[in-house]
Amino acid sequence: MVTPNIPKATAKRLPIYYRYLNILADAGKEHVSSTELAEAVKIDPATIRRDLSYFGALGKRGYGYDIASLQAFFKKTLRQDKLNNVALIGVGNLGHALLNYNFHKSNNARISAAFDIDPKITGLIQSGIPVYPMEDMQEQLQLQQIEIAILTVPADKAQAVTDELVAAGIKGILNFTPLRITVPKDVRVQNVDLTNELQTLIYFLQYFE
Amino acid sequence: MVTPNIPKATAKRLPIYYRYLNILADAGKEHVSSTELAEAVKIDPATIRRDLSYFGALGKRGYGYDIASLQAFFKKTLRQDKLNNVALIGVGNLGHALLNYNFHKSNNARISAAFDIDPKITGLIQSGIPVYPMEDMQEQLQLQQIEIAILTVPADKAQAVTDELVAAGIKGILNFTPLRITVPKDVRVQNVDLTNELQTLIYFLQYFE
Repeated sequence: MVTPNIPKATAKRLPIYYRYLNILADAGKEHVSSTELAEAVKIDPATIRRDLSYFGALGKRGYGYDIASLQAFFKKTLRQDKLNNVALIGVGNLGHALLNYNFHKSNNARISAAFDIDPKITGLIQSGIPVYPMEDMQEQLQLQQIEIAILTVPADKAQAVTDELVAAGIKGILNFTPLRITVPKDVRVQNVDLTNELQTLIYFLQYFE
Repeated sequence: MVTPNIPKATAKRLPIYYRYLNILADAGKEHVSSTELAEAVKIDPATIRRDLSYFGALGKRGYGYDIASLQAFFKKTLRQDKLNNVALIGVGNLGHALLNYNFHKSNNARISAAFDIDPKITGLIQSGIPVYPMEDMQEQLQLQQIEIAILTVPADKAQAVTDELVAAGIKGILNFTPLRITVPKDVRVQNVDLTNELQTLIYFLQYFE
């Protein structure tokens, strides 16, 4: 049922669908139409039908989609059936907030190790997560078989740290720094640029109000 | 020169171009080719040429784009020529990190007021920013003529707070809650869903490694 060649925009919507399917299932619902789903997640019904059709899921007229089977399918597709250990690199203000952020609640991912240069916090457990010095990063990532890192270091350190992460076998980086980091082809980067998000919002307000 | 009917994807890339143009100008460069720009920002040259052409900016063969004029143009387009006051609603872990986040550094936006329900922090100045109780939100937003809000309240409060923001005249919301909030047509929402970003990364790792 899984087709890897789906558009990136579709892939980005899958977690949204999954979260709402779980809410519906918890509420005891058994099926949902694309129109109902559209209203809840603010995505138009045609897009939802097209997205789900990539995975061979077809709603039935007058019934919609079967929630339990969609849920089971997404759980597997989104790798929710196993726990994904994630490393956090850089425990500044944003890093500290992410240590406390409940990724795990709706998502089978957990920050299992954090790394920083500040001797005041390294060697300690912060918000339940051990903070190691940067010198131990390569060793710990390999020991813990971590493939995913959240990068919240200062921009001027971002590329050097990225090179270390790649050398340690990291395959995916959630990049919170404003730098567009350079990685080999087999490493995936997802940029979360907060200044950018705010500027885009300001831009749209100016022209679309 | 400004055309408002540009694709959303193009609008999202403008702040990235703007930031790199500033870096190049600071380094004393006078012109840049789409290929050089592409290398720095990790966007392919054809996309850059198309994006800039929406604004009538055309590079010259063998010379590229004139940095000073592109910079001046982006400054105006991205509303960098005036300071945009922004409100932060909800000073929990993430909210607190955002109070300390340097939006202002590369961007003419500044959090000028924060709001929370916790009496331990309201009435105080945190990281240089006054934190008001929620009861004062409508009054302060109107007094300070704030049109943009960053929403970092718990998901179960998000819609009620959004309704208050809309009533107070807010026109743009940067939504960090996992809830897809409902707003009138003239209010713009930009979602920053951290769990989603992480899930998308995990999804792509699974199928593209």
